[in-house]
Parts: sequence; structure tokens; C-alpha cells
Amino acid sequence: MVGNYLTDMSSLINQEISNYLPTENAPQILLDAMNYSLTAGGKRIRPIIAMATYEAFGKKPIDILPLAINIELLHTYSLIHDDLPAMDNDDYRRGKLTNHKVYGDAIAILAGDALLTHAFGNLAKYLKDFSNLSLQNALQLIEEFAQYSGAAGMVGGQVLDFLGDQKETSFDDLLYIHTHKTGDLLVFSFRMGAILAGATQDQLTQITSFGKKLGLAFQIQDDILDVIGDDEKLGKKVGSDLANQKVTYPFFKGLEQSKEEVRTLIDTAKMDIKDIGIDTTNLYEIADFLVKREQ
Amino acid sequence: MVGNYLTDMSSLINQEISNYLPTENAPQILLDAMNYSLTAGGKRIRPIIAMATYEAFGKKPIDILPLAINIELLHTYSLIHDDLPAMDNDDYRRGKLTNHKVYGDAIAILAGDALLTHAFGNLAKYLKDFSNLSLQNALQLIEEFAQYSGAAGMVGGQVLDFLGDQKETSFDDLLYIHTHKTGDLLVFSFRMGAILAGATQDQLTQITSFGKKLGLAFQIQDDILDVIGDDEKLGKKVGSDLANQKVTYPFFKGLEQSKEEVRTLIDTAKMDIKDIGIDTTNLYEIADFLVKREQ
Repeated sequence: MVGNYLTDMSSLINQEISNYLPTENAPQILLDAMNYSLTAGGKRIRPIIAMATYEAFGKKPIDILPLAINIELLHTYSLIHDDLPAMDNDDYRRGKLTNHKVYGDAIAILAGDALLTHAFGNLAKYLKDFSNLSLQNALQLIEEFAQYSGAAGMVGGQVLDFLGDQKETSFDDLLYIHTHKTGDLLVFSFRMGAILAGATQDQLTQITSFGKKLGLAFQIQDDILDVIGDDEKLGKKVGSDLANQKVTYPFFKGLEQSKEEVRTLIDTAKMDIKDIGIDTTNLYEIADFLVKREQ
Repeated sequence: MVGNYLTDMSSLINQEISNYLPTENAPQILLDAMNYSLTAGGKRIRPIIAMATYEAFGKKPIDILPLAINIELLHTYSLIHDDLPAMDNDDYRRGKLTNHKVYGDAIAILAGDALLTHAFGNLAKYLKDFSNLSLQNALQLIEEFAQYSGAAGMVGGQVLDFLGDQKETSFDDLLYIHTHKTGDLLVFSFRMGAILAGATQDQLTQITSFGKKLGLAFQIQDDILDVIGDDEKLGKKVGSDLANQKVTYPFFKGLEQSKEEVRTLIDTAKMDIKDIGIDTTNLYEIADFLVKREQ
């Protein structure tokens, strides 16, 4: 089901990711907690997207691994905080106990804080070695990382997701949640790869449009899987969103219409980057993976 | 008691700080929660330190306000998270309800996350306008911001503080907590001002040493105030650290010895920067303020 490219990239990232945690002078329990969630599996789709986009411009993806991996650090912090009792109150993720179930709420909050902080520090650190980029572009990349993951991005999406339930969440709210909570960091992943590769403004615009459509398709697909998915493959209780009174895309649009919209989003997304002078092979594979995935 | 310099700088920062929050496309309740804690008062000593250090090199402090203010954003996130029920479980700070008492635990966690994220984004954004700095130095500054505030810095200190009580915390642990939980961000504040001013390596070393001593003195003084302070002026219940079984410096060293160490630290700190070719006036005022302050 999953192409070799994605499997190989995922293995590479899994092999390397622990090397990007701080090693000195930090409390061991904090490092353990950070490492626990960082190595708990997952698709690694965000750093893969950044590396594959970079590669689409004829570059070697391994060269930006130390930069791309920080998106995974940031994504991991968001999962740890989302799972907390004060938020989604989840005991399991990917079949393993959530961070706070192992280390307690306080250490889980602090492990998330440290991963978030380290994502920015590492990005700055490894950008120093990345000589292709101007000062303005390097700082712009860090600024965007914060925009897409902050109050007007991922965190903002999580706020509306937390506040929402079927009685109060409108379809517009749901679109905001899907666009920001999950979509924004995916969009940033594409942009990181393109910016590091020296994309033109036009290429960047098209890749951003591609990423936005994929981000929304990914989230709608996630909603669909929650309705029709399989317990074991997802590693969480199917139907838990409905049980928690969470609003989903199929709740508003129905299952078939939701599926149709995913297909349309993927098809039109592919058109966005078809003729911008890059090798689309791996990006198309990612697009297909995002809507075919079973976990 | 407090010199005009510190009062004026503090007023300036209070006047400007809300302008550095995101304004668009973020949920209103999130912006309200961020703004609530950001404008809840406080000494603003961290951005003042950065600006005063910059000024000590003959520069105009106002020029780095948009950079220095991000240390206050980061400090504010750490207070919000520290106050959470899962950590210190404080209902009041500076005489006002803590963030989670007003907005709930989930929004408080997310407001902290957003402030932390925004601190890095803003720093990168305004460094783009700061033409004095090379690419390497700009990225180094962001990397240091993360180091001093992350797992091996402020967050690490908070972890040990959370885990510690009088039965388990050694004097070495207490030194680790004081050095990292509070000291590191103060040290970074001095370094930011010096790096932005183009300090030589030797000047930076001496200013860092000055900052480390002041950071420790500040924290010992905080412990002393907790023992002998006045409810109203501190805005929290005096003796609460002892009541919570928190280890303090006087617990190990006694009150008089603790006071003596504060004086020695301040005196030797002043020697560090006496002959490095900068105007020490305001930095000495800050040193004195840190140990004379009543709140």
C-alpha cells in the first residue's frame, strides 16, 4: 500500500530522530519523556514532505534532514499537549500509553514545552550550516514556522477544536479547525522544502496551494476513517470522535460526499504543481498516500 | 526605592507589549488569554536587562525593544504553565487570578504554547530589520534563546523544582533549580543585549559571568523574601514555599548566611564588568534593584 519511497524515508527519520534531542545538562526524566513520545512511531509525514519537496527541485533530501526533523519535534509536542486530561484526555496513542499516563501531567506539559522550544533552537542551529540561504530567507523560515504552528495556526485550530461540539460548531468552524489544526503544519512542511530549495515565488505559491488542498483532504480522510475505520489499524477506539461529541466532516456533508471531496481535492492539488518545472513523482505519491492510508 | 531608569523602561514596555501579540486570524479567547497574562504586570526585568545592556555599549535601547520584548513573552508562558493545577496549582499571581482560573486549564496550556511559539516567531521577524547582525549571529541568538529556555535551561530547572521537596532535594539540586529555572533567562537577557550591540568575545564572557551571579542572587533573594516578606507586597501568601514543602536557600544555609551570599554575589558581579569598556551605570542599578526589590 505504501510506496518504498515513503517507507525508506520514514525508516531514515526513525533512525535519526533521537539524535536531535538535547543530550547534556537536562534532567533525565525530561529527556526520557521527550524521547518516549518522539520515538512512539507515527508516519513522519511532515519531515518527509519537506524532504520530498526539496528533492522535487533536484536536490538531495538528506541534506535538509536536520532542518525537516524539527517539524516532527513540534508535531510531537502538540500531540503530548492535546492528549492531556485538560484537553482530549486520551490514555492511548498509536497503541501506547500517552505521555502523561507514563510521566504524569506536569512532566508531560514540560516535555511538550521543551520539544517546542528545541524545535526552534535546532532549526536555527542547523540553518547556520545551510549556506544556500540568505539571512532574510533563513529568518523568514523561522518566522513562518511560528506562524503556521502558533495562535493563528496550529494552536488556534486546537483552541476551536477544544471548544467545539456538535451543538456549537458550525461548518465554518470545522473548516477553520481542519485548515489550522492539522493543515497548517503540513503546508509549512511543503513550504520549508521549497524555500530551502530556492523555489521561485510562483513555484512557492503553487506548492502552497497544493499543500493546502492536501492538508484539508488529509483531515477529511481522518474524519472518514474515524467513522469507517478499523480499531486495530488506527490504534485508537473507532467512533471516539462521535462518542466525544466531536464534529466531523461527514457529520455535515455525509460520508459519500466527503469521500468525493477528498478525491476532488487530490486531483486539483496535483494540477497545481503539474507544470511548475519540478519532479512531481514523490509529491504525487505523498498525495495518494494521505488519502489511502489506513493508519 | 526603584530608580527612574527602571520605572521609565518598565512603563515603556507595558505601553508597547500588547502590540507584539498576533492580531489576525486567531481565536479571540486565545488572544484574550495571552493578553491577560502578558499585561498582568510584573517587573519586566528581562527585556529591561537586554535593553540596558545594549545601552551600556552606547546604543539606543528603544531600537531593540521589538527583540527584547520576546523574552517577556517567553517568561509569561512559563508563568502560565507553572501555575497550572498539574504543577504549582496557584490561584493567584501578582494579586490577580491565574490564567487557568480565568480561562480554564486547556486554554491556559494553549495560551502558553502560543506565547512561546510567538516569542520565537517575533524574534525572527524583527531580526530581519536589524541590519547590524550577521546571519551566523542572528541564528546563534535564536539558538541561544532556545538553549537557555529549554530542556537544559529554564524548563529543566522547572522539572527539578516540580520534583523536589525537602525530603529529596539536595543543595546541588537547589543550585541547579536556581541556576536554570530563573537564572538562565536572566543570563540570556544580558547576552541578547550584548550580542546585539556587537560585544567582543571577552566582553560577552564577562557580561555572562555578571548575569550568572545576578541570576543566583536574584533567586536567593526571592527565597529570603518568601521567609521574611510581606503578604501584600509580594501578592502571594508569605511562607507558601515552606508550606508547600519547597526547598529554599535559607533552608540549607540559614537566613543570615543567605543574605551575606547575596551581597557577595552582587559585589563580585559588579567587578566582572567594571573594566570592560562599557557604561555600567544602569547595569549596576539593575544589580542593586534585584536584591533590594520588595516585589
